[in-house]
Formats: sequence, C-alpha cells, structure tokens
Amino acid sequence: MSSVSDDSADLPARLAENADAIETLLDALLSPVALAGEVARPRRLLDAMRHGALGGGKRLRPFLTVETARLFDVAPAQALRAGAAVELVHCYSLVHDDLPAMDDDDTRRGRPTVHKAYDEATAILAGDSLLTLAFDVMAGPETHPSGEVRANLVLALARASGLGGMAGGQMLDLAAEGRFGDAPAGGLDEPQIRQLQAMKTGALLAASVEIGALLGQASEAERAVLVTYGKALGAAFQIADDILDVEATPEQLGKATAKDEGRGKGTLVSALGREGARRERDRLSGQAVAALDRFGDKAGMLRAAARFAAERRS
Amino acid sequence: MSSVSDDSADLPARLAENADAIETLLDALLSPVALAGEVARPRRLLDAMRHGALGGGKRLRPFLTVETARLFDVAPAQALRAGAAVELVHCYSLVHDDLPAMDDDDTRRGRPTVHKAYDEATAILAGDSLLTLAFDVMAGPETHPSGEVRANLVLALARASGLGGMAGGQMLDLAAEGRFGDAPAGGLDEPQIRQLQAMKTGALLAASVEIGALLGQASEAERAVLVTYGKALGAAFQIADDILDVEATPEQLGKATAKDEGRGKGTLVSALGREGARRERDRLSGQAVAALDRFGDKAGMLRAAARFAAERRS
Repeated sequence: MSSVSDDSADLPARLAENADAIETLLDALLSPVALAGEVARPRRLLDAMRHGALGGGKRLRPFLTVETARLFDVAPAQALRAGAAVELVHCYSLVHDDLPAMDDDDTRRGRPTVHKAYDEATAILAGDSLLTLAFDVMAGPETHPSGEVRANLVLALARASGLGGMAGGQMLDLAAEGRFGDAPAGGLDEPQIRQLQAMKTGALLAASVEIGALLGQASEAERAVLVTYGKALGAAFQIADDILDVEATPEQLGKATAKDEGRGKGTLVSALGREGARRERDRLSGQAVAALDRFGDKAGMLRAAARFAAERRS
Repeated sequence: MSSVSDDSADLPARLAENADAIETLLDALLSPVALAGEVARPRRLLDAMRHGALGGGKRLRPFLTVETARLFDVAPAQALRAGAAVELVHCYSLVHDDLPAMDDDDTRRGRPTVHKAYDEATAILAGDSLLTLAFDVMAGPETHPSGEVRANLVLALARASGLGGMAGGQMLDLAAEGRFGDAPAGGLDEPQIRQLQAMKTGALLAASVEIGALLGQASEAERAVLVTYGKALGAAFQIADDILDVEATPEQLGKATAKDEGRGKGTLVSALGREGARRERDRLSGQAVAALDRFGDKAGMLRAAARFAAERRS
C-alpha cells in the first residue's frame, strides 16, 4: 500500500540511536557491580562475556522489539531491557557457533572471536552465561510490572532459542554440511532450506517482534499479524545474508565470506539462483510490509526495517 | 534438636520415588512431540539431550525442590515441574563440563558422555538446548498459576546458574587448575575454595530449596532460613564429593576418581586434611538441620536429605 508511511529516510539515525542505547544497557548489565550478589564475579568470564556482547552489530533484534513495543506506547526503558535480553541470546549464539567444534571462525565483526581472544573453555562458559543472563534480564521486575507478562516474555524467548528454534536450526545446518555422515546426497531441497532458516535465524527475529507485542499486551489478532511480519522479515534477512555471502568482500562484512559454497551448504541462492533469490527476498520483504497494514502510519519504522533487512549491504 | 523428626529411614524410598517421577517428566518434556510447534525437531539434537538428561542420577535437586514445596502444601505436579527445570540446568552443566575443552571426561554415570556418544558440536548444542528448555519449563503456566511467582522462579534459577553462580564457579575451578597461567602459586586458600564451591555446586543446590519456597509463597523469614539450609547442605555435599574423590573407587561413582589431586585442585580435603574435612562436612550438615527448627516435624525429610548429602557413599 503506497499510501502508508515508510520511514526509510529516518531509519539509519533511529538504528544508530537504538544501537547506542543497547550498547549502554548491555555495558551496564555486564559491569562488575551489576547483578550484585555476595560473591565476586570471575573477572575473566565477565571480560569474555563483554567481548562477545559489546562493541558492535546492528542490534536489529532489539530494534525490532523496541519499534514493535512503540506501536503500543510501551515505556522505552522496558522495551530496551527486553530487547537487550533478545540481543544477549543472539550474542551467545554467535560465541558458540564460532567455536572450533562448530563453524570454527576466527573473526567476527572484524575482531577475534571469543575463543580466539580467550580460549575454548572460556568461550563455552561465556556463551552459557550470556544465555542465562538473557533470562535473568527478561524475568526482572524492571522489564514489565506484570509478572504474567514477564513469564510470557521468557516463554517466547526460550521457545525461539532452543531445540525447536535457533539451536535446532544450527543443528540442521551442521547436518546439512555432512558433519554426521547422514547428509542427503543432493543437498537440502527448498522446503528443507526454508525450514532450517526459519529455525536458525527466523525464529529469534520473529520472537524479537513478538516480544514487543507481548510487552504491549497486544490483542491476539495484532500479535498474529506481527508474528507474520517477523517471520517474513526473518526469511528475507536470511536470503539477504546468503546473497551477501556470495557477493560481498570479507572487508565489508568483517568476517570470512563464500563459506557456504565452500562447505556445500544449501542456501536459497543455490536453490533458486541469484536472481531468483533476490526476487524471493523482495517478495518476503513485501509480505512483511503488507502485514503491517492495520497499524497505519505508526508502523512506518517497522516497514523501513523490513526493507533494510532485505536490502542491506553488510 | 533430638526432639524433632528425622525421616532418614524413609529417605531411600522417597528419593527413589521422586527420581522415578522426575525421569518420567523429563522423558515427556523431551519427547519428539512435546513442546509441539510448526517445525520438526532435529532428531539427533533431541537424542543427545535425552542422553544428557535421562537415565540416572540421584535427582537430589528436584528432591529438595519437591520436599521444600511440601512444607507449604504446594501441588505436587507444580513442584515436580519446577524441580525438573532445576534438574535440566544441572544436566546441561554436566554435558558442558565434560567437554574436551573443559574437564574432558569420557564417562558419566557409567555411560559415555554426550560428546563421546555423539560429537562435540552436538554436545555443545544439547547443553545449550537443555538450559533453554529449563527456562521454558519454569516459565510455563503449568508450573504455577501466578505469573509473578513464575517470573521469580526464573530469576532464582538464572541467578544460581550464571556468572555469579554455577558457570562462574566452573570458571574459578578451571582457573585454579592453572588453565589460564594465572593460578596462585600455593593453590587456593580456604576462603577461596569455599567461594568456588559455593558458586559451582552450592548455588544451584540452594536455589533448588529456594525455588520450593518461592512455589510455596513462603514468607521472607521462612525463605531466609530455607536458603541457609540450602547453602549449608550444598557446602556439605561438596565436601562429601571431595572426600569421595579420594576414597571411592571409579566403579562406585561411575566416573574417574582422584582427579582433583591429579589436577592440583584445591579442595577442603587438601586444605583441612581428611579428618578435618569430615568434621567440617558434619558441622555444615548439622547447621542445615538446625536451620529447619521452625518447621518442626514437617521438615523431617529435609533433615534426612541434609544428612544424606553429607554421608552418601556414591
């Protein structure tokens, strides 16, 4: 619908502002005195958690949480905390996915990965502790006055992250590489690739949006269309990622590229071709935008986010 | 106090009954159709989670949750679910602690560890997914009708498990082995050993009790003495573990023994001698029992659990 607003022009500034606010909040949550208890925190572990969580990224997930919550006039401090919890899960997943036993990556956002900067044991524990902290932050009374809402936020985050979501998707991805000697001979077919991506990256992106809706105590109908938006955005985001993997330089991304082909991974780029993948990406991004119709002009920034997720260059 | 009851005679049957109930519940939570969603669960990951969570252990943590909740007449099904969530955290920690980059153990409870039965990547993801499932279970509406209570359960579990608790304690333990080249020359001193153990094993044992109290919506004063009980029990349990490490055979424990000395780890056995460690273990177990005075006969099973934790032979 061309009559509704699309705040693409304002997006870069709003994204940057949100990334700053998330960085500040994560820095505070990961300060030596935060979450004070009776025992000192092991400094090396805290430093490794900070290495894994601070200093970078677009912070797209918390942006989606904050902008969705804004539709319902949620207090910004609450939305930021919930967004930070989602981002902590994202950061934990990067720390663990980079491990030698998993994707074995040495750099991330142009810096050494956590196990390179520290060691494997520390990286495993740092990931574990970031994941645990995410639930600590989400369940805390500052995130929402209603315990019922907080428990539902925890549920949404857990379901998107575990066996049926992100971790399960990473497992399917490793299996598709032939890690366990049982990869299908011709690679994954298109529906299998879509399922893998919906779990590995789509679930947490969709949950970022759903969590904003839960904070805003959205109606069932509102939540349903927002989840549709989140899923379509997540799928478009992943295709954009696969296109970047074949088209961008390592310098643009701050990490190795062309890894998927090297590993024989199925992506929608290999299944549909570059042009077909671009068309599918744009179709999904259009579907995400269309899902927001009922929110009118108020959803301009979420529309811009869907276009950005599909068209980003890094 | 010799006038109050101690249900030691009934403990073995009650422990076994609880272990059966927990096994059945974990089996259901980890069934292919549980937590149904729109996507199939990756079978290999689910199997590895089942390997890490089913088939063994005393299930002492859920026992503490269930027996504490019983003081407040909590519905048994709710207490079992909360106990299962705590046990899932315990199981995740075993899967990750056994990894080659951590303690590098090949067997656990007389069976191959998860990374031996599967592979390292699968074991990392299985641990991650068990941890995530713990929060899913704890936050679910079946665990308690009040969202406020469920959010507080999540908070108690997260705080006992992360940087300031179990994961932090594991980090201190690795550091004490000289892993990071910065171990104190003479080993850890007694207060440092106590802090390490309070974090690594004490925190989750104490949380098992606290979670029972939270389920029962115990008063502040009741919760405080129960946390005292849980901490003292946890400390006694760990000293008993250290004594077993030097005195038991691998066959008794279903895992390697005398590992602590081989690694130069400080334990209270090395700091206080075997006889001194036994005395300290019994002092702590007595302190745990004494903390229960206000609950009278109703706490007989918890008293027996404190004695059991200190005097167990495997």
